[in-house]
Amino acid sequence: MPNMIAMAVPHAGGKFERIERDIPNPAPGELLIEVHACGVCHSDALTVEGHVPGIAYPRVPGHEVIGIVAAVGSNVGGWQVGDRAGVGWFGGSCGHCVRCRRGEAFACEVIQAVTGVTRDGGYATHLVADATAVAHVPTDLDQIESAPLLCAGITTFNALRNCGAGPGDLVVIHGVGGLGHLGIQFARRLGFCTVAVNRGRGKEELARKLGAHDYIDSEDGDVAQILQQMGGARAIIATVTSADAMRAIVGGLGPNGVMMVIGAVGTFPVDTLDLLGKRAAVKGWYSGVAADSEDTLAFSKLNNVSSMNEIFPFEEAQAAYDRMMSGKARFRVVLKMR
Amino acid sequence: MPNMIAMAVPHAGGKFERIERDIPNPAPGELLIEVHACGVCHSDALTVEGHVPGIAYPRVPGHEVIGIVAAVGSNVGGWQVGDRAGVGWFGGSCGHCVRCRRGEAFACEVIQAVTGVTRDGGYATHLVADATAVAHVPTDLDQIESAPLLCAGITTFNALRNCGAGPGDLVVIHGVGGLGHLGIQFARRLGFCTVAVNRGRGKEELARKLGAHDYIDSEDGDVAQILQQMGGARAIIATVTSADAMRAIVGGLGPNGVMMVIGAVGTFPVDTLDLLGKRAAVKGWYSGVAADSEDTLAFSKLNNVSSMNEIFPFEEAQAAYDRMMSGKARFRVVLKMR
Amino acid sequence: MPNMIAMAVPHAGGKFERIERDIPNPAPGELLIEVHACGVCHSDALTVEGHVPGIAYPRVPGHEVIGIVAAVGSNVGGWQVGDRAGVGWFGGSCGHCVRCRRGEAFACEVIQAVTGVTRDGGYATHLVADATAVAHVPTDLDQIESAPLLCAGITTFNALRNCGAGPGDLVVIHGVGGLGHLGIQFARRLGFCTVAVNRGRGKEELARKLGAHDYIDSEDGDVAQILQQMGGARAIIATVTSADAMRAIVGGLGPNGVMMVIGAVGTFPVDTLDLLGKRAAVKGWYSGVAADSEDTLAFSKLNNVSSMNEIFPFEEAQAAYDRMMSGKARFRVVLKMR
Amino acid sequence: MPNMIAMAVPHAGGKFERIERDIPNPAPGELLIEVHACGVCHSDALTVEGHVPGIAYPRVPGHEVIGIVAAVGSNVGGWQVGDRAGVGWFGGSCGHCVRCRRGEAFACEVIQAVTGVTRDGGYATHLVADATAVAHVPTDLDQIESAPLLCAGITTFNALRNCGAGPGDLVVIHGVGGLGHLGIQFARRLGFCTVAVNRGRGKEELARKLGAHDYIDSEDGDVAQILQQMGGARAIIATVTSADAMRAIVGGLGPNGVMMVIGAVGTFPVDTLDLLGKRAAVKGWYSGVAADSEDTLAFSKLNNVSSMNEIFPFEEAQAAYDRMMSGKARFRVVLKMR
Repeated sequence: MPNMIAMAVPHAGGKFERIERDIPNPAPGELLIEVHACGVCHSDALTVEGHVPGIAYPRVPGHEVIGIVAAVGSNVGGWQVGDRAGVGWFGGSCGHCVRCRRGEAFACEVIQAVTGVTRDGGYATHLVADATAVAHVPTDLDQIESAPLLCAGITTFNALRNCGAGPGDLVVIHGVGGLGHLGIQFARRLGFCTVAVNRGRGKEELARKLGAHDYIDSEDGDVAQILQQMGGARAIIATVTSADAMRAIVGGLGPNGVMMVIGAVGTFPVDTLDLLGKRAAVKGWYSGVAADSEDTLAFSKLNNVSSMNEIFPFEEAQAAYDRMMSGKARFRVVLKMR
Repeated sequence: MPNMIAMAVPHAGGKFERIERDIPNPAPGELLIEVHACGVCHSDALTVEGHVPGIAYPRVPGHEVIGIVAAVGSNVGGWQVGDRAGVGWFGGSCGHCVRCRRGEAFACEVIQAVTGVTRDGGYATHLVADATAVAHVPTDLDQIESAPLLCAGITTFNALRNCGAGPGDLVVIHGVGGLGHLGIQFARRLGFCTVAVNRGRGKEELARKLGAHDYIDSEDGDVAQILQQMGGARAIIATVTSADAMRAIVGGLGPNGVMMVIGAVGTFPVDTLDLLGKRAAVKGWYSGVAADSEDTLAFSKLNNVSSMNEIFPFEEAQAAYDRMMSGKARFRVVLKMR
Repeated sequence: MPNMIAMAVPHAGGKFERIERDIPNPAPGELLIEVHACGVCHSDALTVEGHVPGIAYPRVPGHEVIGIVAAVGSNVGGWQVGDRAGVGWFGGSCGHCVRCRRGEAFACEVIQAVTGVTRDGGYATHLVADATAVAHVPTDLDQIESAPLLCAGITTFNALRNCGAGPGDLVVIHGVGGLGHLGIQFARRLGFCTVAVNRGRGKEELARKLGAHDYIDSEDGDVAQILQQMGGARAIIATVTSADAMRAIVGGLGPNGVMMVIGAVGTFPVDTLDLLGKRAAVKGWYSGVAADSEDTLAFSKLNNVSSMNEIFPFEEAQAAYDRMMSGKARFRVVLKMR
Repeated sequence: MPNMIAMAVPHAGGKFERIERDIPNPAPGELLIEVHACGVCHSDALTVEGHVPGIAYPRVPGHEVIGIVAAVGSNVGGWQVGDRAGVGWFGGSCGHCVRCRRGEAFACEVIQAVTGVTRDGGYATHLVADATAVAHVPTDLDQIESAPLLCAGITTFNALRNCGAGPGDLVVIHGVGGLGHLGIQFARRLGFCTVAVNRGRGKEELARKLGAHDYIDSEDGDVAQILQQMGGARAIIATVTSADAMRAIVGGLGPNGVMMVIGAVGTFPVDTLDLLGKRAAVKGWYSGVAADSEDTLAFSKLNNVSSMNEIFPFEEAQAAYDRMMSGKARFRVVLKMR
């Protein structure tokens, strides 16, 4: 095995630098993973641009990791060297706190780690992760193309399967981008009446091709009113990052409707009249844990859900990151390590 | 039967005037109800003070009505003259629209009536109501004392049984007043770990007597933080009417927690960070339909839930309304017609 | 309008006879429907062969009816002459009993009618139905081909969406016949990992074409054991009519698994050991009410679910019924009235 | 610390013998618990009378254990020497298999241990348990009196909170014995309309005192019919051990009703007609995992649920067991170690 090679991040300017270190031994309860691919996600900017208070540098970003297990720490069950493995935003859980014992590992009171933020992530040839954070990856899935399913995929899939909508219910994917283009595929294959909402008509054809039954141009009239005329949305998956855009659409919820908020957009003013008479809700959603990643990958494979990616070699991490930040990628950017 | 006597409301000043009319015959699908008691609710101010756009005057307020059926319109099933009957905020449903057929009669697309707002309510000796709006009232329930269960009761009971909390979960009743003093009783009897939150210590003893396992003085520290130290609330029933007070407590939600908003408080700013990592939600709640009233009354009888009331004779409607508006009543005001 | 023409059923021998009567006027709350198509279902034998105690003859069978509204009785809301209309097994509900008020119209305590059994069904040019029993039918749906969705469709769709399984969960369609070939299509489009089980390999290709991810020949080994090796079924939709076949597969349920029993098969012996450690259940399922039919039709249209039918002209009702009873039809038989 | 003293069980005759061994060191992932009390449960007969195939003797029975942690094995989080600890039927879970990761630890594919059956239980002064099997016990709970909550308590509480019934729904506790007398208390405090069913009138007064709103003597008429007249049961918790008794009551289920089967009673013949029209179910229920025990204890403490016990000193294990087997104990038997 070669030395580990990590792309670290300087404090200032978002410029990447190549750093090499010895490959570490996994501690008890940990796995060493040889990274084959890592998706580049907008949340990586938290690390790259230093938005997270108290973050320790150098810190390797990246939380859409697929690779194989290179070494198994002591006291780890269920893993062998050579197993396909994936790591997402979720950094692991203790297994014994009040939350873990009740199936709420996402809210573990002990570990609370975030891959690529509080511990090193996947912009690297190797990665050490808590075994509880690692998902089994099917061997017949393209590991490069599938990397974005570990964050953009799990977040939309898991929000959709937990939004309370039933078969045939009107579900809106708000935003046709990195998350939205996956959300449309999932929503259609989950049996929802799938409506994509985006600015302009530029992405309508694609949205329909991905499975949307209908498309609304949010610049072409009052989107909340249009949704009400369609009967009201049972769920809106808000993949946009603008509180204003979210505010404009929340009135489109129908009876028992819920807006799933999956990204931090600061303070979001909710008009209680939009919620009261309809029993509508605004709900936050944390992406998911390792088992959710496994479910996302299995569902994607079973139903031919795939991410549209632009692939960059590991050496071009800087270009990959810049491309993602430009907002022009169609739709996800992936670093290929080997 | 005597002539109908209704207390109508002038446009200006909130002054009540006594008006007499002929007792109407119920139209097809309607019931004529002889009113025995009607609760006086803060929402009556919508009618009395003219906050509702387009409201037609004279309009009789009152949506916590208990009485007996005096006449049955044609095409009404399940009702006989002499049956005990109750009417709440819910003004009826068509039974055949897309919502009614799917068990969402609260969102009926055809009727959308509100008792005491869009049609005459219970500050009167008689009332005509859509039969679908009328709840069967157990004969062995004190009909005067029980009137507030038709709005203050159903709203808290129904919000609680639909908030998603399970036995032993931490449920907060925010505000110990007309709604809250019922909410505490319901929450305790539904098996929740019941915590009352109010300003000051003045109502602590009462809250505990009503069933609260614990009490928090919202002026004595950061209530959100205190709730987090207790593990985080699985549900908060917001009976307060201040957006600021709600904003201060929403951070006390724990994993999968939900704040049930049951009153219009204008725009309520939600910090998405309070929701995201916890999968927490802010959800609007519409009180309930006739069947929910029946369930509320049955549950209250079965488990000895009762409203604390100040009773006024019908002739003193003005005093009753003023007392309610003063905020000093302990806790509900009821008009007694006979 | 011509005289009504109904195929009635003699007491003995299952022989059909043509009877003509005056077209009736719908009573209050009823609709007169001009029948365009009626599916022929195995349950029709209850009427034809007289298995139902107390049934009054002549009685017209048929509960998979599609047509248009020919006349609207008094006191009916939401219907116009000319509307597309469908009627299934569900014969209507009162709207005001304790069940109807709580969204359980299938268990209405007042009406309890069954189309084609306790009142005349769709082997006829016209049909009078309780308005609450009638579903709105989309105009762009082929009304002849869609008739079986009103019983075979709704039963499988509704059982599937209420079985508790989630996306990607292992769901078994037991039996690839009239119900099963629809069940496979629904299960796949609802996002389940769909496994078809049938005797022999004859229907494997078809099952896969309809959407099954996998197929098990129930004669080729222990089907319960095979399912356990696949992880255990989250749900089994039992479309077979043999208690023995059901008994052989119930052991294939995994944790929290449920067998949905949708047909009467007499007494079904359940080994409690099959249920206990897994928290597994055997659950009966009543097909559904008018709104469920509407949902079934809408979902089928949205997701291209269609019944494979053999069409017979109305005049050949005898042949249609005999063909259905032969068990050789692929898969549903439909009478075409016009 | 003294030597460990265990009551072992000879193969023949159900006679207990005192055996002494060295106190073992807990292996990695295990806890050594000093036993203070252990409930004596009818399931202990599986071990004592050798009904379990392949069981290794000597084997210490007992799965209602309360004590304190005496030693903590390596690789155990969340436990300190001196902590109050409880162990029930559930013998632990791996934490990493497909079930454990999805909140279904009761169906762990790796460990599948049963306390007092596949590993030594609590008829002893000390016990070694997998840490995942151990529940935290509140210090202000009487540890002797509470021991039965670890099996009789958790089983009824957990079945009740997972039976799908809502507040005020009709819930039947079938059998007023060791499980039933706890079930009544839980059902009442969970907000159900609680009906106790037992043979004869002997236990009616007690049942009502424990919280039952109503009581049915199963020898006084057709219990299924009586329940139907009351509206039908939303849930029946079957604490009886007779398939015949269960068969006689299953017809008392109302719409969406479920019979929770919590004990193995062999083959239970279900008439599909009892299930179909009502969407009723027969569901198996596995008691629960360590977190469920914690919830049971917390709920019991919060709501004053307590077991009625007969206490025996450890030295009289034989008498305690015989008393339990006699069926005459009121209601649980507990061994007190110190």
